[in-house]
Amino acid sequence: MNVDQWMIEESFRNTFAMGFKIKKYLHSEQSQFQKIDVVETESVGRLLLLDGKTMVSDKDEFVYHEVVSHIPYMVSRQHKKVLIIGGGDGGVVREYVKHPDIERIDLVEIDERVIEVSKIYFPDCTSGLTDPRVRVLPQDGFAFIKKAKKEYDIIVIDSTDPVDFASGLFTDEFYHDVYEALTDEGIMMNQTENPFLDEWGIKNIYNNMRKVFPVVQSFTAPMLIYPGVYWTFGFSSKKYRATDLNPEKLNQMSSLQRSLKWYNMDWHKGCFSVSNFHKNMIGQE
Amino acid sequence: MNVDQWMIEESFRNTFAMGFKIKKYLHSEQSQFQKIDVVETESVGRLLLLDGKTMVSDKDEFVYHEVVSHIPYMVSRQHKKVLIIGGGDGGVVREYVKHPDIERIDLVEIDERVIEVSKIYFPDCTSGLTDPRVRVLPQDGFAFIKKAKKEYDIIVIDSTDPVDFASGLFTDEFYHDVYEALTDEGIMMNQTENPFLDEWGIKNIYNNMRKVFPVVQSFTAPMLIYPGVYWTFGFSSKKYRATDLNPEKLNQMSSLQRSLKWYNMDWHKGCFSVSNFHKNMIGQE
Repeated sequence: MNVDQWMIEESFRNTFAMGFKIKKYLHSEQSQFQKIDVVETESVGRLLLLDGKTMVSDKDEFVYHEVVSHIPYMVSRQHKKVLIIGGGDGGVVREYVKHPDIERIDLVEIDERVIEVSKIYFPDCTSGLTDPRVRVLPQDGFAFIKKAKKEYDIIVIDSTDPVDFASGLFTDEFYHDVYEALTDEGIMMNQTENPFLDEWGIKNIYNNMRKVFPVVQSFTAPMLIYPGVYWTFGFSSKKYRATDLNPEKLNQMSSLQRSLKWYNMDWHKGCFSVSNFHKNMIGQE
Repeated sequence: MNVDQWMIEESFRNTFAMGFKIKKYLHSEQSQFQKIDVVETESVGRLLLLDGKTMVSDKDEFVYHEVVSHIPYMVSRQHKKVLIIGGGDGGVVREYVKHPDIERIDLVEIDERVIEVSKIYFPDCTSGLTDPRVRVLPQDGFAFIKKAKKEYDIIVIDSTDPVDFASGLFTDEFYHDVYEALTDEGIMMNQTENPFLDEWGIKNIYNNMRKVFPVVQSFTAPMLIYPGVYWTFGFSSKKYRATDLNPEKLNQMSSLQRSLKWYNMDWHKGCFSVSNFHKNMIGQE
Protein backbone atom coordinates (compact mmCIF):
# COMPACT_ATOMS: atom_id res chain seq x y z
CA MET A 1 0.00 0.00 0.00
CA ASN A 2 1.34 3.38 -1.04
CA VAL A 3 -0.20 5.57 1.66
CA ASP A 4 0.19 8.72 -0.43
CA GLN A 5 -2.52 7.46 -2.79
CA TRP A 6 -5.02 6.88 0.00
CA MET A 7 -7.17 9.01 2.29
CA ILE A 8 -6.72 7.07 5.53
CA GLU A 9 -8.55 7.80 8.77
CA GLU A 10 -7.10 6.21 11.88
CA SER A 11 -9.50 6.01 14.79
CA PHE A 12 -10.06 4.52 18.23
CA ARG A 13 -6.72 5.63 19.59
CA ASN A 14 -5.04 4.78 16.29
CA THR A 15 -5.81 1.06 16.46
CA PHE A 16 -8.30 0.87 13.57
CA ALA A 17 -8.12 2.44 10.12
CA MET A 18 -10.22 2.87 7.02
CA GLY A 19 -8.87 4.01 3.69
CA PHE A 20 -10.28 5.31 0.43
CA LYS A 21 -8.10 5.36 -2.67
CA ILE A 22 -7.78 8.89 -3.98
CA LYS A 23 -8.48 9.83 -7.57
CA LYS A 24 -7.97 13.55 -7.15
CA TYR A 25 -7.62 16.24 -4.48
CA LEU A 26 -10.39 18.78 -5.07
CA HIS A 27 -10.21 21.27 -2.22
CA SER A 28 -8.33 22.05 0.97
CA GLU A 29 -8.63 25.02 3.31
CA GLN A 30 -8.25 25.96 6.94
CA SER A 31 -11.41 27.71 8.13
CA GLN A 32 -11.76 29.57 11.41
CA PHE A 33 -12.82 26.29 13.04
CA GLN A 34 -11.27 23.37 11.20
CA LYS A 35 -9.47 22.00 8.15
CA ILE A 36 -11.88 21.32 5.30
CA ASP A 37 -10.89 18.86 2.56
CA VAL A 38 -12.71 17.41 -0.41
CA VAL A 39 -11.23 14.49 -2.35
CA GLU A 40 -12.51 12.45 -5.25
CA THR A 41 -12.14 8.76 -4.35
CA GLU A 42 -12.39 5.52 -6.31
CA SER A 43 -14.82 3.78 -3.97
CA VAL A 44 -17.15 6.42 -2.52
CA GLY A 45 -17.03 9.30 -5.00
CA ARG A 46 -16.53 12.74 -3.51
CA LEU A 47 -15.62 12.72 0.15
CA LEU A 48 -15.74 15.67 2.59
CA LEU A 49 -13.39 15.63 5.57
CA LEU A 50 -13.28 17.97 8.55
CA ASP A 51 -9.98 17.88 10.45
CA GLY A 52 -9.21 14.65 8.62
CA LYS A 53 -12.44 12.94 9.68
CA THR A 54 -14.78 11.59 7.05
CA MET A 55 -18.10 13.45 7.04
CA VAL A 56 -20.03 13.02 3.79
CA SER A 57 -19.60 10.97 0.63
CA ASP A 58 -21.58 10.69 -2.57
CA LYS A 59 -21.90 6.96 -2.03
CA ASP A 60 -23.64 6.75 1.32
CA GLU A 61 -24.87 10.23 2.31
CA PHE A 62 -28.46 9.24 1.62
CA VAL A 63 -28.48 6.78 4.53
CA TYR A 64 -27.70 9.26 7.29
CA HIS A 65 -29.72 12.08 5.83
CA GLU A 66 -32.87 10.03 5.28
CA VAL A 67 -32.90 8.24 8.62
CA VAL A 68 -32.40 11.29 10.86
CA SER A 69 -35.13 13.13 8.96
CA HIS A 70 -37.94 10.73 8.19
CA ILE A 71 -37.88 8.78 11.46
CA PRO A 72 -38.67 11.76 13.73
CA TYR A 73 -41.01 13.25 11.13
CA MET A 74 -43.11 10.07 11.06
CA VAL A 75 -43.36 9.88 14.84
CA SER A 76 -43.99 13.56 15.54
CA ARG A 77 -47.65 14.64 15.61
CA GLN A 78 -46.68 18.25 15.09
CA HIS A 79 -43.73 19.34 13.02
CA LYS A 80 -44.09 22.94 12.09
CA LYS A 81 -40.56 23.89 13.08
CA VAL A 82 -37.42 21.81 12.73
CA LEU A 83 -33.95 22.74 13.98
CA ILE A 84 -30.76 21.19 12.66
CA ILE A 85 -27.54 21.84 14.59
CA GLY A 86 -24.45 21.19 12.48
CA GLY A 87 -25.16 19.55 9.14
CA GLY A 88 -23.58 22.26 7.01
CA ASP A 89 -23.54 19.88 4.04
CA GLY A 90 -27.30 20.46 3.78
CA GLY A 91 -28.28 16.81 3.38
CA VAL A 92 -30.69 16.77 6.32
CA VAL A 93 -32.40 19.93 5.09
CA ARG A 94 -32.84 18.34 1.65
CA GLU A 95 -34.83 15.52 3.25
CA TYR A 96 -37.01 17.73 5.46
CA VAL A 97 -38.08 19.99 2.60
CA LYS A 98 -39.73 16.92 1.03
CA HIS A 99 -42.51 17.33 3.63
CA PRO A 100 -44.86 20.14 2.59
CA ASP A 101 -46.38 20.59 6.06
CA ILE A 102 -43.13 21.72 7.68
CA GLU A 103 -43.26 25.50 7.97
CA ARG A 104 -39.71 26.34 8.95
CA ILE A 105 -36.33 24.63 9.00
CA ASP A 106 -33.50 26.35 10.85
CA LEU A 107 -29.98 25.18 10.06
CA VAL A 108 -27.50 26.34 12.70
CA GLU A 109 -24.00 25.55 11.46
CA ILE A 110 -21.05 27.11 13.25
CA ASP A 111 -18.77 27.02 10.21
CA GLU A 112 -20.14 28.90 7.23
CA ARG A 113 -17.27 27.61 5.09
CA VAL A 114 -18.61 24.05 5.34
CA ILE A 115 -21.84 25.27 3.76
CA GLU A 116 -20.03 27.16 0.99
CA VAL A 117 -17.69 24.27 0.17
CA SER A 118 -20.64 21.85 0.15
CA LYS A 119 -22.54 24.05 -2.30
CA ILE A 120 -19.66 23.63 -4.75
CA TYR A 121 -18.85 19.94 -4.30
CA PHE A 122 -22.11 18.42 -3.01
CA PRO A 123 -24.78 20.37 -4.92
CA ASP A 124 -27.37 17.63 -4.47
CA CYS A 125 -27.00 17.76 -0.67
CA THR A 126 -27.33 21.54 -0.58
CA SER A 127 -30.23 21.66 -3.03
CA GLY A 128 -32.77 22.21 -0.22
CA LEU A 129 -31.07 25.31 1.17
CA THR A 130 -32.83 27.60 -1.30
CA ASP A 131 -36.27 26.47 -0.14
CA PRO A 132 -38.08 29.57 1.24
CA ARG A 133 -38.85 27.75 4.51
CA VAL A 134 -35.14 27.31 5.28
CA ARG A 135 -33.14 29.76 7.41
CA VAL A 136 -29.38 29.23 7.35
CA LEU A 137 -27.87 30.60 10.57
CA PRO A 138 -24.08 30.56 10.81
CA GLN A 139 -23.98 30.48 14.61
CA ASP A 140 -22.75 28.41 17.51
CA GLY A 141 -25.44 25.78 18.16
CA PHE A 142 -24.56 25.74 21.84
CA ALA A 143 -25.42 29.42 22.30
CA PHE A 144 -28.37 29.29 19.90
CA ILE A 145 -30.15 26.48 21.72
CA LYS A 146 -30.01 28.26 25.08
CA LYS A 147 -32.22 31.03 23.74
CA ALA A 148 -34.92 28.80 22.25
CA LYS A 149 -37.82 27.78 24.52
CA LYS A 150 -40.56 25.33 23.46
CA GLU A 151 -40.03 26.38 19.91
CA TYR A 152 -39.07 23.33 17.83
CA ASP A 153 -40.99 20.12 17.25
CA ILE A 154 -37.90 18.23 16.06
CA ILE A 155 -34.23 18.95 16.75
CA VAL A 156 -31.52 17.04 14.87
CA ILE A 157 -27.95 17.14 16.23
CA ASP A 158 -25.93 16.53 13.06
CA SER A 159 -22.52 16.85 14.70
CA THR A 160 -19.02 15.50 14.39
CA ASP A 161 -17.55 13.22 17.06
CA PRO A 162 -17.45 14.08 20.77
CA VAL A 163 -14.05 15.75 20.68
CA ASP A 164 -12.87 19.37 20.46
CA PHE A 165 -15.54 21.99 19.83
CA ALA A 166 -18.29 19.40 19.21
CA SER A 167 -17.78 17.54 22.51
CA GLY A 168 -20.27 19.77 24.33
CA LEU A 169 -23.00 18.43 22.04
CA PHE A 170 -22.92 15.10 23.92
CA THR A 171 -23.36 16.37 27.50
CA ASP A 172 -26.47 16.24 29.67
CA GLU A 173 -26.31 20.03 30.00
CA PHE A 174 -26.70 20.34 26.25
CA TYR A 175 -29.47 17.73 26.12
CA HIS A 176 -31.26 19.69 28.82
CA ASP A 177 -31.09 22.81 26.65
CA VAL A 178 -32.43 20.81 23.71
CA TYR A 179 -35.27 19.53 25.90
CA GLU A 180 -36.18 23.09 26.82
CA ALA A 181 -36.08 24.19 23.19
CA LEU A 182 -38.50 21.44 22.16
CA THR A 183 -42.29 21.72 22.19
CA ASP A 184 -44.27 19.54 24.61
CA GLU A 185 -44.17 16.45 22.40
CA GLY A 186 -40.78 17.17 20.82
CA ILE A 187 -38.18 14.74 19.54
CA MET A 188 -34.38 14.92 19.46
CA MET A 189 -32.42 12.84 16.95
CA ASN A 190 -28.63 12.47 17.08
CA GLN A 191 -25.78 10.31 15.87
CA THR A 192 -24.32 8.33 18.75
CA GLU A 193 -21.11 6.73 17.47
CA ASN A 194 -19.90 3.15 16.92
CA PRO A 195 -20.36 0.85 19.91
CA PHE A 196 -17.83 -1.79 18.84
CA LEU A 197 -14.85 0.48 19.18
CA ASP A 198 -16.00 3.09 21.68
CA GLU A 199 -18.00 1.29 24.34
CA TRP A 200 -17.33 3.91 26.99
CA GLY A 201 -18.33 6.76 24.70
CA ILE A 202 -21.69 5.33 23.70
CA LYS A 203 -22.63 4.35 27.24
CA ASN A 204 -21.86 7.86 28.38
CA ILE A 205 -23.96 9.44 25.59
CA TYR A 206 -27.03 7.31 26.36
CA ASN A 207 -26.67 7.89 30.10
CA ASN A 208 -26.71 11.60 29.44
CA MET A 209 -29.77 11.40 27.20
CA ARG A 210 -31.66 9.32 29.79
CA LYS A 211 -30.99 11.93 32.45
CA VAL A 212 -33.11 14.35 30.42
CA PHE A 213 -35.64 12.51 28.20
CA PRO A 214 -38.34 10.08 29.37
CA VAL A 215 -38.14 8.09 26.11
CA VAL A 216 -34.66 7.16 24.79
CA GLN A 217 -34.35 4.60 22.02
CA SER A 218 -31.71 3.68 19.48
CA PHE A 219 -31.30 2.19 16.03
CA THR A 220 -28.45 1.56 13.64
CA ALA A 221 -27.77 2.35 10.01
CA PRO A 222 -24.54 1.76 8.12
CA MET A 223 -22.30 4.73 7.34
CA LEU A 224 -19.73 3.29 4.98
CA ILE A 225 -17.29 6.17 5.46
CA TYR A 226 -17.46 6.38 9.28
CA PRO A 227 -14.98 4.45 11.43
CA GLY A 228 -16.24 0.90 11.72
CA VAL A 229 -19.35 1.63 9.60
CA TYR A 230 -21.86 0.22 12.12
CA TRP A 231 -23.42 3.43 13.35
CA THR A 232 -25.93 4.08 16.12
CA PHE A 233 -28.45 6.89 16.31
CA GLY A 234 -30.44 8.14 19.26
CA PHE A 235 -34.17 8.87 19.37
CA SER A 236 -35.06 10.90 22.48
CA SER A 237 -38.61 11.98 22.92
CA LYS A 238 -40.88 13.72 25.41
CA LYS A 239 -43.89 11.55 24.67
CA TYR A 240 -44.09 9.23 21.69
CA ARG A 241 -42.12 6.04 21.25
CA ALA A 242 -40.08 5.57 18.08
CA THR A 243 -42.29 2.89 16.58
CA ASP A 244 -45.51 4.79 17.28
CA LEU A 245 -45.96 6.20 13.79
CA ASN A 246 -48.33 9.12 13.25
CA PRO A 247 -51.44 7.52 11.70
CA GLU A 248 -52.25 10.70 9.82
CA LYS A 249 -48.99 10.50 7.87
CA LEU A 250 -49.07 6.89 6.71
CA ASN A 251 -50.60 7.65 3.32
CA GLN A 252 -48.28 10.55 2.65
CA MET A 253 -45.22 8.42 3.48
CA SER A 254 -46.48 5.42 1.50
CA SER A 255 -46.22 7.62 -1.52
CA LEU A 256 -42.97 9.43 -0.64
CA GLN A 257 -41.03 6.33 0.39
CA ARG A 258 -41.15 4.98 -3.14
CA SER A 259 -38.69 7.70 -4.11
CA LEU A 260 -36.42 7.33 -1.08
CA LYS A 261 -33.18 5.38 -1.28
CA TRP A 262 -33.10 3.98 2.26
CA TYR A 263 -36.12 4.78 4.40
CA ASN A 264 -39.36 2.87 4.40
CA MET A 265 -41.85 2.44 7.22
CA ASP A 266 -41.30 -1.31 7.59
CA TRP A 267 -37.60 -0.70 8.09
CA HIS A 268 -38.43 2.11 10.56
CA LYS A 269 -40.59 -0.18 12.66
CA GLY A 270 -38.06 -3.03 12.55
CA CYS A 271 -34.87 -1.10 13.25
CA PHE A 272 -35.74 -0.33 16.87
CA SER A 273 -35.79 -4.06 17.72
CA VAL A 274 -32.14 -4.13 18.59
CA SER A 275 -29.62 -6.88 19.33
CA ASN A 276 -28.49 -7.87 22.82
CA PHE A 277 -25.15 -6.23 22.08
CA HIS A 278 -26.85 -2.96 21.20
CA LYS A 279 -29.15 -3.09 24.25
CA ASN A 280 -26.18 -3.64 26.49
CA MET A 281 -24.34 -0.67 25.00
CA ILE A 282 -27.24 1.73 25.47
CA GLY A 283 -28.43 0.35 28.81
CA GLN A 284 -31.81 -0.79 27.46
CA GLU A 285 -33.68 -3.55 29.33
CA MET B 1 0.86 5.50 9.00
CA ASN B 2 3.66 2.93 9.12
CA VAL B 3 2.07 0.12 7.11
CA ASP B 4 4.42 -2.48 8.59
CA GLN B 5 2.63 -2.11 11.93
CA TRP B 6 -0.81 -2.74 10.45
CA MET B 7 -2.72 -5.69 9.03
CA ILE B 8 -4.36 -3.99 6.06
CA GLU B 9 -6.92 -5.61 3.77
CA GLU B 10 -7.53 -3.85 0.49
CA SER B 11 -10.78 -4.80 -1.20
CA PHE B 12 -13.18 -3.90 -3.99
CA ARG B 13 -10.51 -3.78 -6.67
CA ASN B 14 -8.11 -2.13 -4.24
CA THR B 15 -10.20 1.02 -3.80
CA PHE B 16 -11.20 0.51 -0.15
CA ALA B 17 -9.10 -0.60 2.81
CA MET B 18 -9.46 -1.52 6.44
CA GLY B 19 -6.56 -1.83 8.85
CA PHE B 20 -5.96 -3.29 12.29
CA LYS B 21 -2.89 -2.26 14.23
CA ILE B 22 -0.77 -5.30 15.01
CA LYS B 23 0.43 -6.14 18.50
CA LYS B 24 2.08 -9.43 17.61
CA TYR B 25 2.30 -12.01 14.83
CA LEU B 26 1.16 -15.33 16.27
CA HIS B 27 1.09 -17.80 13.39
CA SER B 28 1.69 -18.10 9.66
CA GLU B 29 1.62 -21.12 7.39
CA GLN B 30 0.82 -22.14 3.84
CA SER B 31 -1.63 -25.04 3.88
CA GLN B 32 -2.55 -27.15 0.88
CA PHE B 33 -5.29 -24.63 0.07
CA GLN B 34 -4.37 -21.21 1.39
CA LYS B 35 -2.17 -19.03 3.56
CA ILE B 36 -3.30 -19.08 7.18
CA ASP B 37 -2.29 -16.20 9.48
CA VAL B 38 -3.16 -15.30 13.04
CA VAL B 39 -2.24 -11.91 14.46
CA GLU B 40 -2.92 -10.25 17.78
CA THR B 41 -4.34 -6.77 17.11
CA GLU B 42 -4.97 -3.71 19.27
CA SER B 43 -8.58 -3.19 18.24
CA VAL B 44 -10.13 -6.63 17.63
CA GLY B 45 -7.97 -9.05 19.62
CA ARG B 46 -6.87 -12.16 17.78
CA LEU B 47 -7.57 -12.09 14.08
CA LEU B 48 -7.55 -15.06 11.67
CA LEU B 49 -6.79 -14.39 7.99
CA LEU B 50 -7.02 -16.77 5.04
CA ASP B 51 -5.05 -15.61 2.00
CA GLY B 52 -4.87 -12.16 3.61
CA LYS B 53 -8.64 -11.89 4.08
CA THR B 54 -10.05 -11.29 7.55
CA MET B 55 -12.13 -14.26 8.71
CA VAL B 56 -12.62 -14.31 12.48
CA SER B 57 -11.76 -12.00 15.36
CA ASP B 58 -12.24 -12.22 19.11
CA LYS B 59 -14.11 -8.93 19.03
CA ASP B 60 -16.98 -9.67 16.67
CA GLU B 61 -17.10 -13.42 16.00
CA PHE B 62 -20.22 -13.78 18.13
CA VAL B 63 -22.30 -11.74 15.69
CA TYR B 64 -21.83 -13.97 12.65
CA HIS B 65 -21.89 -17.22 14.56
CA GLU B 66 -25.07 -16.45 16.48
CA VAL B 67 -27.09 -15.08 13.58
CA VAL B 68 -26.43 -17.89 11.10
CA SER B 69 -27.28 -20.46 13.77
CA HIS B 70 -30.22 -19.22 15.79
CA ILE B 71 -32.20 -17.65 12.94
CA PRO B 72 -32.66 -20.88 10.94
CA TYR B 73 -33.04 -22.91 14.13
CA MET B 74 -35.93 -20.75 15.28
CA VAL B 75 -37.73 -20.99 11.95
CA SER B 76 -37.17 -24.67 11.26
CA ARG B 77 -39.85 -27.04 12.57
CA GLN B 78 -37.49 -30.00 12.36
CA HIS B 79 -33.79 -29.73 13.00
CA LYS B 80 -32.37 -33.11 13.69
CA LYS B 81 -29.46 -32.76 11.31
CA VAL B 82 -27.46 -29.64 10.53
CA LEU B 83 -24.70 -29.31 7.91
CA ILE B 84 -22.08 -26.56 7.98
CA ILE B 85 -19.92 -26.12 4.89
CA GLY B 86 -16.74 -24.22 5.65
CA GLY B 87 -16.61 -22.71 9.11
CA GLY B 88 -13.43 -24.43 10.21
CA ASP B 89 -13.09 -22.00 13.09
CA GLY B 90 -15.93 -23.91 14.78
CA GLY B 91 -17.94 -20.86 15.85
CA VAL B 92 -21.16 -21.96 14.11
CA VAL B 93 -20.92 -25.42 15.67
CA ARG B 94 -20.49 -23.85 19.11
CA GLU B 95 -23.85 -22.09 18.68
CA TYR B 96 -25.74 -25.13 17.34
CA VAL B 97 -24.65 -27.40 20.20
CA LYS B 98 -26.55 -25.05 22.54
CA HIS B 99 -29.76 -26.66 21.24
CA PRO B 100 -30.28 -30.06 22.89
CA ASP B 101 -32.79 -31.31 20.30
CA ILE B 102 -30.27 -31.27 17.43
CA GLU B 103 -29.09 -34.83 16.91
CA ARG B 104 -26.19 -34.38 14.52
CA ILE B 105 -24.01 -31.52 13.28
CA ASP B 106 -21.73 -32.24 10.31
CA LEU B 107 -18.91 -29.76 9.73
CA VAL B 108 -17.46 -30.11 6.23
CA GLU B 109 -14.32 -27.98 6.03
CA ILE B 110 -11.98 -28.46 3.09
CA ASP B 111 -8.90 -27.28 4.97
CA GLU B 112 -8.16 -29.32 8.10
CA ARG B 113 -5.38 -26.89 9.00
CA VAL B 114 -7.93 -24.10 9.60
CA ILE B 115 -9.56 -26.30 12.24
CA GLU B 116 -6.23 -27.16 13.89
CA VAL B 117 -5.02 -23.56 13.95
CA SER B 118 -8.38 -22.41 15.34
CA LYS B 119 -8.15 -24.97 18.15
CA ILE B 120 -4.93 -23.30 19.28
CA TYR B 121 -5.82 -19.62 18.84
CA PHE B 122 -9.63 -19.54 19.09
CA PRO B 123 -10.37 -22.19 21.73
CA ASP B 124 -13.74 -20.65 22.59
CA CYS B 125 -14.89 -20.95 18.95
CA THR B 126 -13.82 -24.57 18.70
CA SER B 127 -15.23 -25.57 22.08
CA GLY B 128 -18.24 -27.24 20.49
CA LEU B 129 -16.23 -29.59 18.27
CA THR B 130 -15.85 -32.17 21.04
CA ASP B 131 -19.62 -32.49 21.45
CA PRO B 132 -20.54 -36.13 20.65
CA ARG B 133 -23.17 -35.00 18.11
CA VAL B 134 -20.53 -33.28 15.97
CA ARG B 135 -18.77 -34.96 13.04
CA VAL B 136 -15.82 -33.06 11.62
CA LEU B 137 -15.34 -34.03 7.97
CA PRO B 138 -12.27 -32.59 6.26
CA GLN B 139 -13.74 -32.79 2.76
CA ASP B 140 -14.62 -30.65 -0.24
CA GLY B 141 -18.11 -29.27 0.46
CA PHE B 142 -18.87 -29.20 -3.25
CA ALA B 143 -18.40 -32.97 -3.62
CA PHE B 144 -19.97 -33.75 -0.24
CA ILE B 145 -23.24 -31.96 -0.96
CA LYS B 146 -23.79 -33.84 -4.23
CA LYS B 147 -24.07 -37.13 -2.34
CA ALA B 148 -26.56 -35.93 0.29
CA LYS B 149 -30.27 -36.25 -0.55
CA LYS B 150 -33.06 -34.93 1.69
CA GLU B 151 -30.80 -35.41 4.64
CA TYR B 152 -30.31 -32.06 6.40
CA ASP B 153 -32.87 -29.75 7.96
CA ILE B 154 -30.53 -26.76 7.97
CA ILE B 155 -27.45 -26.11 5.83
CA VAL B 156 -25.13 -23.19 6.61
CA ILE B 157 -22.66 -22.07 3.95
CA ASP B 158 -19.93 -20.50 6.06
CA SER B 159 -17.62 -19.66 3.20
CA THR B 160 -15.05 -17.09 2.18
CA ASP B 161 -15.74 -14.65 -0.66
CA PRO B 162 -16.82 -15.70 -4.16
CA VAL B 163 -13.30 -15.97 -5.55
CA ASP B 164 -10.89 -18.85 -6.14
CA PHE B 165 -11.91 -22.22 -4.73
CA ALA B 166 -14.91 -20.80 -2.84
CA SER B 167 -16.49 -19.16 -5.91
CA GLY B 168 -18.49 -22.30 -6.73
CA LEU B 169 -20.36 -21.89 -3.45
CA PHE B 170 -22.28 -18.92 -4.92
CA THR B 171 -23.61 -20.55 -8.12
CA ASP B 172 -27.12 -21.77 -8.86
CA GLU B 173 -25.71 -25.24 -9.52
CA PHE B 174 -24.42 -25.36 -5.98
CA TYR B 175 -27.66 -23.96 -4.54
CA HIS B 176 -29.50 -26.68 -6.46
CA ASP B 177 -27.34 -29.33 -4.80
CA VAL B 178 -28.03 -27.73 -1.39
CA TYR B 179 -31.77 -27.79 -2.16
CA GLU B 180 -31.57 -31.50 -2.92
CA ALA B 181 -29.62 -32.18 0.26
CA LEU B 182 -32.27 -30.45 2.39
CA THR B 183 -35.35 -32.13 3.85
CA ASP B 184 -38.78 -31.04 2.60
CA GLU B 185 -38.97 -27.96 4.83
CA GLY B 186 -35.24 -27.25 4.85
CA ILE B 187 -33.45 -23.92 5.18
CA MET B 188 -30.16 -22.67 3.72
CA MET B 189 -28.30 -19.82 5.41
CA ASN B 190 -25.32 -18.07 3.82
CA GLN B 191 -23.24 -14.92 3.97
CA THR B 192 -23.90 -12.76 0.92
CA GLU B 193 -21.30 -9.98 0.93
CA ASN B 194 -21.40 -6.18 1.24
CA PRO B 195 -23.84 -4.47 -1.13
CA PHE B 196 -22.27 -1.00 -0.96
CA LEU B 197 -19.08 -2.01 -2.64
CA ASP B 198 -20.06 -5.07 -4.67
CA GLU B 199 -23.47 -4.37 -6.15
CA TRP B 200 -22.98 -6.75 -9.05
CA GLY B 201 -21.85 -9.58 -6.79
CA ILE B 202 -24.80 -9.42 -4.42
CA LYS B 203 -27.37 -9.14 -7.20
CA ASN B 204 -25.86 -12.21 -8.83
CA ILE B 205 -25.92 -14.23 -5.59
CA TYR B 206 -29.59 -13.46 -4.88
CA ASN B 207 -30.56 -14.15 -8.48
CA ASN B 208 -28.96 -17.55 -8.17
CA MET B 209 -30.72 -18.34 -4.89
CA ARG B 210 -34.09 -17.32 -6.34
CA LYS B 211 -33.62 -19.71 -9.25
CA VAL B 212 -33.70 -22.56 -6.74
CA PHE B 213 -35.61 -21.62 -3.57
CA PRO B 214 -39.26 -20.48 -3.34
CA VAL B 215 -38.51 -18.28 -0.30
CA VAL B 216 -35.43 -16.04 -0.41
CA GLN B 217 -35.01 -13.31 2.22
CA SER B 218 -32.13 -11.28 3.56
CA PHE B 219 -30.96 -9.48 6.67
CA THR B 220 -27.84 -7.64 7.77
CA ALA B 221 -25.54 -7.82 10.74
CA PRO B 222 -22.29 -5.92 11.23
CA MET B 223 -19.01 -7.78 10.81
CA LEU B 224 -16.45 -5.30 12.06
CA ILE B 225 -13.53 -7.09 10.41
CA TYR B 226 -15.12 -7.64 6.99
CA PRO B 227 -14.62 -5.11 4.19
CA GLY B 228 -17.10 -2.32 4.70
CA VAL B 229 -18.59 -3.99 7.83
CA TYR B 230 -22.22 -3.82 6.64
CA TRP B 231 -22.84 -7.48 5.87
CA THR B 232 -25.79 -9.24 4.29
CA PHE B 233 -26.93 -12.79 4.91
CA GLY B 234 -29.31 -14.92 2.90
CA PHE B 235 -32.21 -17.00 4.23
CA SER B 236 -33.44 -19.45 1.58
CA SER B 237 -36.20 -21.81 2.49
CA LYS B 238 -38.43 -24.47 0.98
CA LYS B 239 -41.47 -23.52 3.03
CA TYR B 240 -41.31 -21.19 6.04
CA ARG B 241 -40.67 -17.48 5.91
CA ALA B 242 -37.86 -16.05 8.02
CA THR B 243 -40.13 -14.26 10.50
CA ASP B 244 -42.40 -17.28 10.97
CA LEU B 245 -40.86 -18.48 14.24
CA ASN B 246 -41.54 -22.01 15.43
CA PRO B 247 -44.13 -21.56 18.20
CA GLU B 248 -42.88 -24.67 19.98
CA LYS B 249 -39.44 -23.11 20.49
CA LEU B 250 -40.39 -19.71 21.87
CA ASN B 251 -40.03 -20.71 25.52
CA GLN B 252 -36.74 -22.47 24.95
CA MET B 253 -35.31 -19.42 23.17
CA SER B 254 -36.70 -16.96 25.73
CA SER B 255 -34.44 -18.67 28.19
CA LEU B 256 -31.39 -19.19 25.95
CA GLN B 257 -31.34 -15.68 24.49
CA ARG B 258 -30.53 -14.20 27.88
CA SER B 259 -27.07 -15.72 27.57
CA LEU B 260 -26.50 -14.76 23.91
CA LYS B 261 -24.44 -11.74 22.98
CA TRP B 262 -26.31 -10.69 19.83
CA TYR B 263 -29.40 -12.73 19.00
CA ASN B 264 -32.83 -12.18 20.46
CA MET B 265 -36.20 -12.93 18.91
CA ASP B 266 -37.29 -9.30 18.65
CA TRP B 267 -34.16 -8.51 16.66
CA HIS B 268 -34.77 -11.63 14.53
CA LYS B 269 -38.28 -10.49 13.64
CA GLY B 270 -37.18 -6.90 12.95
CA CYS B 271 -34.07 -7.54 10.90
CA PHE B 272 -35.95 -8.87 7.88
CA SER B 273 -37.72 -5.52 7.41
CA VAL B 274 -35.03 -4.16 5.17
CA SER B 275 -34.25 -0.74 3.71
CA ASN B 276 -35.07 0.32 0.15
CA PHE B 277 -31.35 0.11 -0.63
CA HIS B 278 -31.20 -3.49 0.58
CA LYS B 279 -34.41 -4.45 -1.26
CA ASN B 280 -33.02 -3.03 -4.46
CA MET B 281 -29.78 -4.97 -4.07
CA ILE B 282 -31.50 -8.31 -3.53
CA GLY B 283 -34.33 -7.74 -6.00
CA GLN B 284 -37.06 -7.84 -3.34
CA GLU B 285 -40.40 -6.14 -4.08
